[in-house]
Amino acid sequence: MSNSAFKPVTVVLDWGTTGFRAFLVRSDGSLVDQKEGERGIQSIAKGEHGRVVSEALASWRAEYGPLDIVAAGMIGSRNGWIEMPYVPTPASAADVAAAARTEGLPEGDRITFLPGLTDPTGFPFPDVMRGEEAQLVGFGLDRNIIVVLPGTHAKWAEIRGGHIERFRTFVTGEIYATLADHSFLSKVATAERDHAADAFAEGVALAQEESTRAGGLLTRLFAVRTGWLAGAIAPDEMKSRLSGLIIGWEFVEARTGGWFKEGDTIAVVGDDDLVEVYGRVAENFGVKLAPAPADAAIRGALTIWRRHRLAAK
Amino acid sequence: MSNSAFKPVTVVLDWGTTGFRAFLVRSDGSLVDQKEGERGIQSIAKGEHGRVVSEALASWRAEYGPLDIVAAGMIGSRNGWIEMPYVPTPASAADVAAAARTEGLPEGDRITFLPGLTDPTGFPFPDVMRGEEAQLVGFGLDRNIIVVLPGTHAKWAEIRGGHIERFRTFVTGEIYATLADHSFLSKVATAERDHAADAFAEGVALAQEESTRAGGLLTRLFAVRTGWLAGAIAPDEMKSRLSGLIIGWEFVEARTGGWFKEGDTIAVVGDDDLVEVYGRVAENFGVKLAPAPADAAIRGALTIWRRHRLAAK
Repeated sequence: MSNSAFKPVTVVLDWGTTGFRAFLVRSDGSLVDQKEGERGIQSIAKGEHGRVVSEALASWRAEYGPLDIVAAGMIGSRNGWIEMPYVPTPASAADVAAAARTEGLPEGDRITFLPGLTDPTGFPFPDVMRGEEAQLVGFGLDRNIIVVLPGTHAKWAEIRGGHIERFRTFVTGEIYATLADHSFLSKVATAERDHAADAFAEGVALAQEESTRAGGLLTRLFAVRTGWLAGAIAPDEMKSRLSGLIIGWEFVEARTGGWFKEGDTIAVVGDDDLVEVYGRVAENFGVKLAPAPADAAIRGALTIWRRHRLAAK
Repeated sequence: MSNSAFKPVTVVLDWGTTGFRAFLVRSDGSLVDQKEGERGIQSIAKGEHGRVVSEALASWRAEYGPLDIVAAGMIGSRNGWIEMPYVPTPASAADVAAAARTEGLPEGDRITFLPGLTDPTGFPFPDVMRGEEAQLVGFGLDRNIIVVLPGTHAKWAEIRGGHIERFRTFVTGEIYATLADHSFLSKVATAERDHAADAFAEGVALAQEESTRAGGLLTRLFAVRTGWLAGAIAPDEMKSRLSGLIIGWEFVEARTGGWFKEGDTIAVVGDDDLVEVYGRVAENFGVKLAPAPADAAIRGALTIWRRHRLAAK
């Protein structure tokens, strides 16, 4: 491994299934530049990822010399560039850093792949995350708190004693997307979801309804259709209603599973508008919110990478 | 309305969103002939349904003269031929028959559209069915029993005192299909679901797991992926596992909603292999099964139509 001093800039690479984002950042995490591309990891043949990255980052290399790249998430999965292991919980930032792996690239760049995390207490199989561990480290592991990470496969994680103690996945975003695009709604619903809409709030309220007559999730989902048939939900309100119901239901299931109770303080971490939305839903469930930085993923990737590099010296 | 005697044969038309089936039956419901076609109701322009039906049934008309046709289900919906009303529960066979509507067709046929049913106690909106009311009448309304009708939008209905008393929808089949075809499974799973597979039974068992660590439906669904990542579920087992989990979860929600308890006797009504499958799942939940005819939809349509015609004389 190199024993050179840290360079003034580092590239944090977020390369997922539908495209990539690359952030050029200083050592304090502040942003210098960023790039986006539409080539997802699965659209690239095995063995071609290095060439694609080298080309995408050419202008930064021209300006700053050979680059240090940190890559978290699905790029290190079975369908990505290389399959990185999963570090078991409870896991500290040092545990994650110890499992990272650095490779040289033809143009002189070095890329460090971060591992994923697995929670062996998952039932019936160990639960998994890839990428969220960097967000959690970026948020900070020095408090004891529950952190929610919205997404296609949303995570609820417990931070305790400087470790990511345990976590669970909820397929909230995936259920929303598949129903919005491919179900009874898809031929009728006319608008994207609007989290600020009354229909979203009404969906959350339906999730919160506690009387037996409301049924479970499989019954409540049908209410998006029956509400339209009854003339109570307009075609441009259906997706908002669906989204509120499903996100609200995630909170119901998390509460039942002991992840929070009314009056608790939790944090919501992410980099899109779902953070604000989840925060509002949390308040509907009587939960207080701890502040969280919007760039937790970048901060966390840098922190893990720096530990990895220092330990490798 | 005609006061002619009933003809020796009647056509029961099951015309849905993906195709049609037409059954030529004697007055006792026994089958003379049947036809299938791939043109769903939504592929046909408004005003063209009559011509399509007339052409499809031409050979039967040539043999038996002008036909009496009974049509239940989505053909009488907003996106179908004409929009039939919903009869509110509690509803008897006579109530359903009274809301049916007969139209003459150009070739001399007469078509009777059956209404749907609505349950005004549905929360937060009235629940709806189209087509299942014929299955319920064909099963018989003379016992007090809970009847399950598997499908894209599965129904649980209570029959009491000669009426369809109430019912609820579960979007079981829709959740299965959208996840199987458009989710994290769709790129990995390699086989159709097999209800006889161990993976199906394991999915049902996961739905039945009562410990908090198993989470709710949004968490358990992710176990199809984590099981594959853990090497415990093969690609050709994933859809079976998913199906068992979702159908099992329908039973969990129905039990929570008071639709059955262990030791009860219920009936499962339908005309495909889901009847046997739901019966097995019911047994896993400690429920006994009442016998049900496979041709309940045809019997029920005939019963309602005959009442409608007699009342119209």
